[in-house]
Amino acid sequence: MEYTSNTHQILDLIASIPPLDENAMQAARARQQILTKPAGSLGRLEDLAIQVAGITGQSLPTVERKAVIVMAGDHGVTAEGVSAYPSAVTVQMVYNFLRGGAAINVLARQAGARVAIVDIGVAGAIEHPELIARKVMPGTANMATGAAMTREQALTAIQVGIDVLNTQVEQGLDLVATGDMGIGNTTASSALTAALLGIPAEQVTGRGTGLDDAQLSHKVQVIERALALNVPDPNDPLDVLAKVGGLEIAGLVGVILAAAARRIPIVIDGFISGAAALVVARLSPTAVRYFIASHTSVEQGHQYILQELGLTPLLHLNLRLGEGTGAALAMHLVEAAVRTHREMATFTEAGVSTREDEAQ
Amino acid sequence: MEYTSNTHQILDLIASIPPLDENAMQAARARQQILTKPAGSLGRLEDLAIQVAGITGQSLPTVERKAVIVMAGDHGVTAEGVSAYPSAVTVQMVYNFLRGGAAINVLARQAGARVAIVDIGVAGAIEHPELIARKVMPGTANMATGAAMTREQALTAIQVGIDVLNTQVEQGLDLVATGDMGIGNTTASSALTAALLGIPAEQVTGRGTGLDDAQLSHKVQVIERALALNVPDPNDPLDVLAKVGGLEIAGLVGVILAAAARRIPIVIDGFISGAAALVVARLSPTAVRYFIASHTSVEQGHQYILQELGLTPLLHLNLRLGEGTGAALAMHLVEAAVRTHREMATFTEAGVSTREDEAQ
Repeated sequence: MEYTSNTHQILDLIASIPPLDENAMQAARARQQILTKPAGSLGRLEDLAIQVAGITGQSLPTVERKAVIVMAGDHGVTAEGVSAYPSAVTVQMVYNFLRGGAAINVLARQAGARVAIVDIGVAGAIEHPELIARKVMPGTANMATGAAMTREQALTAIQVGIDVLNTQVEQGLDLVATGDMGIGNTTASSALTAALLGIPAEQVTGRGTGLDDAQLSHKVQVIERALALNVPDPNDPLDVLAKVGGLEIAGLVGVILAAAARRIPIVIDGFISGAAALVVARLSPTAVRYFIASHTSVEQGHQYILQELGLTPLLHLNLRLGEGTGAALAMHLVEAAVRTHREMATFTEAGVSTREDEAQ
Repeated sequence: MEYTSNTHQILDLIASIPPLDENAMQAARARQQILTKPAGSLGRLEDLAIQVAGITGQSLPTVERKAVIVMAGDHGVTAEGVSAYPSAVTVQMVYNFLRGGAAINVLARQAGARVAIVDIGVAGAIEHPELIARKVMPGTANMATGAAMTREQALTAIQVGIDVLNTQVEQGLDLVATGDMGIGNTTASSALTAALLGIPAEQVTGRGTGLDDAQLSHKVQVIERALALNVPDPNDPLDVLAKVGGLEIAGLVGVILAAAARRIPIVIDGFISGAAALVVARLSPTAVRYFIASHTSVEQGHQYILQELGLTPLLHLNLRLGEGTGAALAMHLVEAAVRTHREMATFTEAGVSTREDEAQ
């Protein structure tokens, strides 16, 4: 790893990510046994409550203050014709987010979550009072003809993510969800996944927003060309991120690292967020325990990431929209886990017989 | 089918269940194509929005007024030692529901749903101002030594469910979820499923609230004995329901039939609610299109029911609690489907390019 001043800051942040609090988890596990239900009958909600206790260090955690952080950036590789939609849609959709008309706005409202929209690298100009304007550059370079970013640009984008997360923490934050917007970003995520996992591009590349067979085949070839040209080093996650990743993916790496360092549970959205989570896992295996996998994307590369990280998603809804939509939906389940854990009566409080009472 | 006055009322109700409104579904399908997202990218949420449009007959439906109806009843078969918990727990848990301390109370609060608690056949006395007291009898008879109910008792319990649903409609109801409480009711549900589907009891019988291997084997034998003794007629769903079902299952049959007749989407909880849904499907194939399967129960018999009904559950959380907990969780997803359908901007409204724009 090259040591620049940005690198030092990020290494310090990674070193500061604590392991989960085993005492809080033990206390949470014990409480689950005395709530008025057969032990284990709330299934994955019980596991989630215990995980959130370990993350936060609180045996009775709450997840009232929630935010979805949507990182938006463009991709030079769209010049190769890898997406069903024109690159201009990134700007248009960011405006849609800012005006509250997109799926993520609706779903975040329902979940009681704020939406933070970050321009970390959109190719066009965007002006709006609600926008978090932190453009590192107007889109990545075309990875089919060179590196998408320099290492320094990728590090700068990670730092943007860290800054955005820390600002959200200042506003109060118990639970964070990751989201993305960027025409072309399934191409970058597939390339990144192929490089980090050593899997052929064909296996981890899907139809994105809606390619036909011929277009999909072309997308795979573009990714293969980018990997052959850039030769990203699978043992250096930042090298892979810079050469074939994206600005929004790098921003989400920063968001996730900073959230783990602040002991905040992180609901990971689909494939693009998953690619960022994969980079984080390679930088900090400890951070993985802060992850809550929201759903399985239709994009096939996502499966490989989930398997690599040992994560089982909460939802299987055939989503492939991104924006953080799957993560916003999963927030209801995380809240359900924490609320049942906190609000249910115990056997003693409710005067309900336990199995042990019966045995006596 | 015997014709009693109750039977006539129920046959009239079944006849009144309308098919889904194809026009509303077509309009909803068309709207999904112009919302600001790639077509199909919201996956099952899109299907749900279209289904709810068809059920309600409204192309832009809402699901603001929600209720979980929890039917509670006891089972004579508990005398055979088929449950890990004593039968007295049914009364105790009903009080827990009435005081707001159970999982279903917490999850319904979170989902913005009322909880209606119905004593349709609890063995002990319960007094509480919030209780819907409609006890048909204090628990079923022991199906291992005779029929659990007479046909008339089962019909009376169905009528209770119809009445309860209709009262909820008077209070305003856009979405209903089914729930249950009754120590011993996985035994009844397994027996009912085995009888209606013609599957050996062993395949559809699970550990309920927590049986060990020897206890599970005993439970299977009890069910086999009940089926051999009562010889329920698989071509007569009411015969099966009466002989090896339960009061709360019959009550839920009434709830589901009445909801379909009132064009209200029904979120079906786990195995016990599934057994009721299976009876309904045999009485009215049309009603199945009103079902939304919430989750897959750990109880193995549930899988067979879902397969028979052609339903794919929304959640896979290893739940096995009942009470309507899985259904309450799934309500968030139904609401998400309807809200994105209603509240998202269209391409034109948001000034976002479509694939067709690109092609020009």
